[in-house]
Amino acid sequence: MTGWIYWLDMAGVIVFALTGVILACRSRMDPFGMLVLAAVTGIGGGTLRDLVLGVRPVFWVEDPTYLWVILATVALSILGFRYIHRLTRTFLPVTDAFGLALFTVLGAHKALLLEAPGIVAVLMGMMTGVAGGMIRDVLARRVPMVLRQEVYATAAILGGSAYVLLHGLGVAQWLGVSLAIALTLGLRLAAIYWRLSLPTFAWVVTVPNAPPGDPALPPGETPPRKRAKARVKLIRPGHSRRGRR
Amino acid sequence: MTGWIYWLDMAGVIVFALTGVILACRSRMDPFGMLVLAAVTGIGGGTLRDLVLGVRPVFWVEDPTYLWVILATVALSILGFRYIHRLTRTFLPVTDAFGLALFTVLGAHKALLLEAPGIVAVLMGMMTGVAGGMIRDVLARRVPMVLRQEVYATAAILGGSAYVLLHGLGVAQWLGVSLAIALTLGLRLAAIYWRLSLPTFAWVVTVPNAPPGDPALPPGETPPRKRAKARVKLIRPGHSRRGRR
Amino acid sequence: MTGWIYWLDMAGVIVFALTGVILACRSRMDPFGMLVLAAVTGIGGGTLRDLVLGVRPVFWVEDPTYLWVILATVALSILGFRYIHRLTRTFLPVTDAFGLALFTVLGAHKALLLEAPGIVAVLMGMMTGVAGGMIRDVLARRVPMVLRQEVYATAAILGGSAYVLLHGLGVAQWLGVSLAIALTLGLRLAAIYWRLSLPTFAWVVTVPNAPPGDPALPPGETPPRKRAKARVKLIRPGHSRRGRR
Repeated sequence: MTGWIYWLDMAGVIVFALTGVILACRSRMDPFGMLVLAAVTGIGGGTLRDLVLGVRPVFWVEDPTYLWVILATVALSILGFRYIHRLTRTFLPVTDAFGLALFTVLGAHKALLLEAPGIVAVLMGMMTGVAGGMIRDVLARRVPMVLRQEVYATAAILGGSAYVLLHGLGVAQWLGVSLAIALTLGLRLAAIYWRLSLPTFAWVVTVPNAPPGDPALPPGETPPRKRAKARVKLIRPGHSRRGRR
Repeated sequence: MTGWIYWLDMAGVIVFALTGVILACRSRMDPFGMLVLAAVTGIGGGTLRDLVLGVRPVFWVEDPTYLWVILATVALSILGFRYIHRLTRTFLPVTDAFGLALFTVLGAHKALLLEAPGIVAVLMGMMTGVAGGMIRDVLARRVPMVLRQEVYATAAILGGSAYVLLHGLGVAQWLGVSLAIALTLGLRLAAIYWRLSLPTFAWVVTVPNAPPGDPALPPGETPPRKRAKARVKLIRPGHSRRGRR
Repeated sequence: MTGWIYWLDMAGVIVFALTGVILACRSRMDPFGMLVLAAVTGIGGGTLRDLVLGVRPVFWVEDPTYLWVILATVALSILGFRYIHRLTRTFLPVTDAFGLALFTVLGAHKALLLEAPGIVAVLMGMMTGVAGGMIRDVLARRVPMVLRQEVYATAAILGGSAYVLLHGLGVAQWLGVSLAIALTLGLRLAAIYWRLSLPTFAWVVTVPNAPPGDPALPPGETPPRKRAKARVKLIRPGHSRRGRR
């Protein structure tokens, strides 16, 4: 049983390391830079999880197999570069979705093993799933995928909550893990495929005739009084843009 | 006494979570993205403090009330969105100032409780106060507030030092905490209101007739010898710009 | 012996703190902002190393001398500003190279002291050497030096591996440390001086007549079949650019 989860964890590391390689490639980093970005993405989330939960030393210090796996992934990617270069633009988010689903559920699983409360397990799952990719994107100076509206944090939080719920209901471990992974992955892939997004709240500056970026707003001119109509604007998927700037 | 400090800590979490919500709103993140940014801001600084001090597990794993408070803050913000959208541009920095003041002093307080030396307590206070907002701003791709000149790190360092000093002088805890919070908050609010800033050192390239960005500076042409006049330029508040790029 | 390594570690902190000061100066931060950036750079990498290895509390909580040294470095830099402002553009990367070499080898050394396996020690060395500067650059909104192609991660990984190898061969500690530091420093300085860089893999979109940024690629039109020629483009040093954006 534990062995089964170990392999899933490895799969998550490989898949996330691969996204690091792809992004390093796009940012024209050299092979060693690739290794750095692959390692950060592959073990970043789990490292943060272990630190916060107080597991010490961190999992990959105990079991360096993780590092060898990342090394092998990068080496094979470089050797098989003639195949990687033909990947379409959706390959990166789809690979990332697999890593997200695996790490979210396994993160929540490990938190529950350490007898953390349910809400901590959900947060820990999300952190494990999201953090690696977040650091990767910040380092490569991309807009972090979490900040895009395509149901990213949503998938992680719902998937983690589903696992905690199934665990609490006493569902068998293999079933709970499978269902929660399927849910997270399904949500995220559906969001990528149909470009789904939740409605977002647009920030509407209510001062008339003033550009939003103007720092010198005369405070006396703000027109909305107590009964002003709320500016909750539902941004439709087709119009969603990826976070400003 | 401890209970009193606990409520101050909660207040800091709420206030910082609120800044996360506002910034998520401006970056057009969906409700779950909001939750992520609120959590990062609200508990990021304290998490880092606990990790560095070796407190394990981290405070919010021990006491998940913090997470429920963040969840409630985000939920209430979404429900009360019709009020939030009317906030002026100064609301975010002012809210952030309250969080900064609370977390700086409480961070220094907790470090002293663990018998850390004074300088460590000051740094720990600054880290607790600054880190959450820093991660928030990096994720939302804003210029971190610390990098602006408006007496941000200054307020945190002076406020933390004041607390450590008062503690060392044997002042009653409630008085020391109150005074230090008032000092930090006062410094920061004054800086926001009057746009105060400390003088900064401008980086002046002294090679004549060469643009500063030119990487191909001929090394032989650098004119300043031993007695060259120093280019310490005091940037006045009215001219201060928010860090380049 | 241990004392000797302690002084090397201090030298690394001073050198890295200095890079923080210089970058803060260029970003027009005030003296306290300088202090923050200097501290982050000087002790960031080692903090991460200690956290991951499970050393608690972190080294500078145990021995606050590190913090006083950073404080003194910043104070002296401000006093000696008339000399700093005359530095050429290469001073920052060269100083950073010294910090990288010292911290990489000392990080690997400390990991081996704690009986970590070889590959963990290499990663830990790289992390210690690279992390401080990485956070510094992210905070100051610069392209992290690791992302540039100038043999940065390469130098750290090769230098760390060399130390682990020499240690495994039973070479005397002082010799192993010196050789590995010299190797890392030499690689990095050579790369700065001659603008060396490893070949990178260019990401070539193989869809004809479509701009790379076009998200609406018709999947049916991708021409490369099984035997397509690989687009591994060796980017020559003269053409290397610093990561897109």
